[in-house]
Amino acid sequence: MANLRTTKLGIIGAGAVGTSLAYAALIRGAADEVVIYDLNAARAEAQGLDLAHGTPFAHRAKVTGGGDLDVLSASDVIVITAGAAQQPGQSRLELVNTNAEIIRNLMPQLVRRAPDAVYMLVTNPVDVLTEVAVDVAGLRRGQVIGSGTTLDSSRLRWLVAETAGVAPRDVHAMILGEHGDSAFPLWSNATIGGSPISGWTDESGTKIFDDEKLADLANQAVLSAYSIIAGKGATNYAIGLAGVRLVEAILRDEHMVTPVSTVLRDYEGVDGIALSVPCVLGAGGVQRVLRVPMNQSEHDAFHRSGDAIRSVLQEIGQL
Amino acid sequence: MANLRTTKLGIIGAGAVGTSLAYAALIRGAADEVVIYDLNAARAEAQGLDLAHGTPFAHRAKVTGGGDLDVLSASDVIVITAGAAQQPGQSRLELVNTNAEIIRNLMPQLVRRAPDAVYMLVTNPVDVLTEVAVDVAGLRRGQVIGSGTTLDSSRLRWLVAETAGVAPRDVHAMILGEHGDSAFPLWSNATIGGSPISGWTDESGTKIFDDEKLADLANQAVLSAYSIIAGKGATNYAIGLAGVRLVEAILRDEHMVTPVSTVLRDYEGVDGIALSVPCVLGAGGVQRVLRVPMNQSEHDAFHRSGDAIRSVLQEIGQL
Amino acid sequence: MANLRTTKLGIIGAGAVGTSLAYAALIRGAADEVVIYDLNAARAEAQGLDLAHGTPFAHRAKVTGGGDLDVLSASDVIVITAGAAQQPGQSRLELVNTNAEIIRNLMPQLVRRAPDAVYMLVTNPVDVLTEVAVDVAGLRRGQVIGSGTTLDSSRLRWLVAETAGVAPRDVHAMILGEHGDSAFPLWSNATIGGSPISGWTDESGTKIFDDEKLADLANQAVLSAYSIIAGKGATNYAIGLAGVRLVEAILRDEHMVTPVSTVLRDYEGVDGIALSVPCVLGAGGVQRVLRVPMNQSEHDAFHRSGDAIRSVLQEIGQL
Amino acid sequence: MANLRTTKLGIIGAGAVGTSLAYAALIRGAADEVVIYDLNAARAEAQGLDLAHGTPFAHRAKVTGGGDLDVLSASDVIVITAGAAQQPGQSRLELVNTNAEIIRNLMPQLVRRAPDAVYMLVTNPVDVLTEVAVDVAGLRRGQVIGSGTTLDSSRLRWLVAETAGVAPRDVHAMILGEHGDSAFPLWSNATIGGSPISGWTDESGTKIFDDEKLADLANQAVLSAYSIIAGKGATNYAIGLAGVRLVEAILRDEHMVTPVSTVLRDYEGVDGIALSVPCVLGAGGVQRVLRVPMNQSEHDAFHRSGDAIRSVLQEIGQL
Repeated sequence: MANLRTTKLGIIGAGAVGTSLAYAALIRGAADEVVIYDLNAARAEAQGLDLAHGTPFAHRAKVTGGGDLDVLSASDVIVITAGAAQQPGQSRLELVNTNAEIIRNLMPQLVRRAPDAVYMLVTNPVDVLTEVAVDVAGLRRGQVIGSGTTLDSSRLRWLVAETAGVAPRDVHAMILGEHGDSAFPLWSNATIGGSPISGWTDESGTKIFDDEKLADLANQAVLSAYSIIAGKGATNYAIGLAGVRLVEAILRDEHMVTPVSTVLRDYEGVDGIALSVPCVLGAGGVQRVLRVPMNQSEHDAFHRSGDAIRSVLQEIGQL
Repeated sequence: MANLRTTKLGIIGAGAVGTSLAYAALIRGAADEVVIYDLNAARAEAQGLDLAHGTPFAHRAKVTGGGDLDVLSASDVIVITAGAAQQPGQSRLELVNTNAEIIRNLMPQLVRRAPDAVYMLVTNPVDVLTEVAVDVAGLRRGQVIGSGTTLDSSRLRWLVAETAGVAPRDVHAMILGEHGDSAFPLWSNATIGGSPISGWTDESGTKIFDDEKLADLANQAVLSAYSIIAGKGATNYAIGLAGVRLVEAILRDEHMVTPVSTVLRDYEGVDGIALSVPCVLGAGGVQRVLRVPMNQSEHDAFHRSGDAIRSVLQEIGQL
Repeated sequence: MANLRTTKLGIIGAGAVGTSLAYAALIRGAADEVVIYDLNAARAEAQGLDLAHGTPFAHRAKVTGGGDLDVLSASDVIVITAGAAQQPGQSRLELVNTNAEIIRNLMPQLVRRAPDAVYMLVTNPVDVLTEVAVDVAGLRRGQVIGSGTTLDSSRLRWLVAETAGVAPRDVHAMILGEHGDSAFPLWSNATIGGSPISGWTDESGTKIFDDEKLADLANQAVLSAYSIIAGKGATNYAIGLAGVRLVEAILRDEHMVTPVSTVLRDYEGVDGIALSVPCVLGAGGVQRVLRVPMNQSEHDAFHRSGDAIRSVLQEIGQL
Repeated sequence: MANLRTTKLGIIGAGAVGTSLAYAALIRGAADEVVIYDLNAARAEAQGLDLAHGTPFAHRAKVTGGGDLDVLSASDVIVITAGAAQQPGQSRLELVNTNAEIIRNLMPQLVRRAPDAVYMLVTNPVDVLTEVAVDVAGLRRGQVIGSGTTLDSSRLRWLVAETAGVAPRDVHAMILGEHGDSAFPLWSNATIGGSPISGWTDESGTKIFDDEKLADLANQAVLSAYSIIAGKGATNYAIGLAGVRLVEAILRDEHMVTPVSTVLRDYEGVDGIALSVPCVLGAGGVQRVLRVPMNQSEHDAFHRSGDAIRSVLQEIGQL
């Protein structure tokens, strides 16, 4: 067929995160074809079938699952959600080594099948694994990214919106750095409906975002994953929706500005480490890494994130 | 506030089905507020939080979860997905009794809090529980429905579409009767893109939907839940999307024609039993039960479904 | 940039039809780029600018207008809405000759710039001009189509839905043949929510679609354009939305079943004439022309449509 | 029917602006019912019919048009686009008087039919007419608003986005004051993807938004209506989409932050005049008027806008 410009989204991992992302993609019409790969072929096929049964109620999209990597061939974007979960008695470092090894084995096989795809890591620790993937893939730097702090930023925007009484879309705030405990909000540039957050007041004119409140919100945003995991065992829905927005930005060449994890070159003095900073995301992946003003404490927090990731990279022999 | 016409969707059960339905509702903007109730309050709250964190990427909707039935007050539609799963050593009948007892206890408490809501049962066996709910609720008959064979019909349409090489939206076919093993397709009225399915050919002019093929597709549609459960342990995505379409039809007064489970009055000779037949669904729930022509074998199959449900209702002392 | 699979929709004619279609495409996110071409460059640019100013509220899409045919280069679909309107004192035949000449001049220039595009004629008389375009373009037959009776069918479905009290999406009915006075509904296959239209009753059990009613609805569907033109001077909104659905089906490879105008090969005995019959529409345009059962009066009506078009084609020297 | 919470959007004026807004509402599913009123009943009915014919391809929505004000009864939002256009030889002041008189006559008739509706003025001069409408309606202040500079702000965001190479959604900038020649951007708070616009650079590190550039963009945003009118005779598409976003914010209680025209109470020293400032828009209309920091030149520009409107209000005897 001449001129077939339909889009294909490949997802690795048929667990809750990968399939929530596939479900969101199906409902939003984010891609014309969605394929889920899993080592457990029966599971991948069952997920594909359950999703496909919903297509009469959604946008037209072909959805399938399978256990052969060839199902991912010619994908335009490949999202990687696969990875081991921490086992009892296993150290965090052992877990990182396990997942890094999975990525090291997987990427060359993927690149052979979809050399032009944009690769998006979601598996944790996402910044470490993004670096591993970039290193082994041998692709353009912007072609391999991590979902990074897109989700953390979404959580922060929702928290601020609830506090201020406005729609989450009207809160513009970002969390940068490591997708993990050292992540930090860029409060100095945060705005609500066009006003700096520091000056926002309630209806009586009282400022409500003081330092204590900001610290509390930042804490909630970064740590809420723990309370969700305590309550339901995992987080999957918000990351599914956040991930599919990144996929759409790439497939539609949106030039979306969003923090994603990318290997940095002399960014606020951090070099050769993957961390989340605001990027322009579109066709081909990261089209531009944006410089943003940071105050001294934000600069310091950014370096703490960089140090945290560097230390893990060294432990696993990646640096 | 004067004239607040926002819509509220209540969901009972914070498991995979209830939350997939909530996720689909959030992404599609099906309701302005979504509330998930679960006996396990921590689980309900965690699901609500995970969903809420996605709202900056979706339509504006307030999403919360909680363990107090009052969170459901003033809902416009309440979807019931809660219920026990079969325990090892437990008979099917014991399971039905357990779930029927849950519904008998739950409905009066719900009706006090949301007397004008439309109630949609999803918990299985859905036809039996719909009858129990109608009986105990004391509401208008069309106000309490079961999701019934909407999902089975969706599966059939997808299977036919795959076979014929057309979009699922262009396949018009329904599965009627019990949402269970005795469900059957109304092949006599099924069409593909406006042509009777019986006459549909491939490009070479060969008819491809012979009796054997139709039986095979019907079998797959009714039994595919088993193979999905074998592969992934449950089905949740397609039922979530099917359920949210029914919710939208009610909230937007769509006058959608779709099979749902409703207590019948002298329908093809079946009376006082809840089974799925095509209905007009809109504000207030079922607005009209539609009579459809059935051939003799379809009529017989419909009665087998009625007998199957009647027998369970008698076993649990409901008839 | 590697792997840029964004989609481009070209529209010829910056009048009410072309820009309504562009507006619907923008709001629905049907294509990643929309370009409007018009001989009147200032008008095309103004329309592009007015549309572009709405993009912050819609899906990301680049929208522009211009007066140079090169703006259409590399389009995936090109919709042709340009053409002369009937002048006072001008005969219908003179008008057809004028518009046929426009198409004869335009097509080779377009094909040079977008050889892989699917071309969709909307300008009237659409069946005649589709034939002219196919003839001069030298492309695959399915690559050049006319919007045909897609709009007439939509009108019919809405009229039937209003009469039956159901949603338009649950009415499955098609108008075939000429997009003009000889168009006719394929009543023999029409269904409402899965039931044959002939047997549909109101709630009291009275059949409401008798021959008189069907004739009246067919008449309204075919002639409503005249009453709309009498009231507002033109029709543009429904054709814009119908047209964009056809564009989506092509760009997303939907395998949608819908009547479009295509040059027929021995179809119910009509050969070498462009008329609307149900087709499978997807990547590349018409993927398959579907045979549908017609009763004798439908067969006769189809031939009257064929004769009407053949006669015009002969008058303008195309046959 | 119990508990019918469907939403109704009334539109006054069946011209290009009113019907573009209706079309966008239909495609987006913004309201469950859309009614267009026009003194010219035939025109309103024809527009309603043309729109209704598109419903099979869109969300379920009832769309009608008519020439009797009673069709607007029980609307949840009423958008007013009606008004005279400037006649040759007519002074601007005569035009204002004519349109003010239309609003003075219309509002009491509307309020009788839809006392709880939110009223949104689109007719120009929108700030003057908003004040007239508030005065004669006797409703809550936030219940009567003007679309104001929502459209101007959208134009500005698009212009900045094109210049910076990012998506319009990632540009956060507002135009405040009069919807007219004295409108001005609040550059001091404008951001691109979370960075202050003043510091934004191109990829080489050169700042591109210097004072000259900002003045040029502001000029284009405020004056582009003139060039669009020169090219196509009117502006209708962007205002249709901007208007429907405001309608959605109200119907879904979104708490959207956006500039709309509202009668101010001691706002930067302006009192008793309707001007656009950022507001929280949701159920009931304006829920909160937001204070934003302005620098001295912005403060001065705001007063120039206030003076411009006050002077017209005095000329027409409204103050």
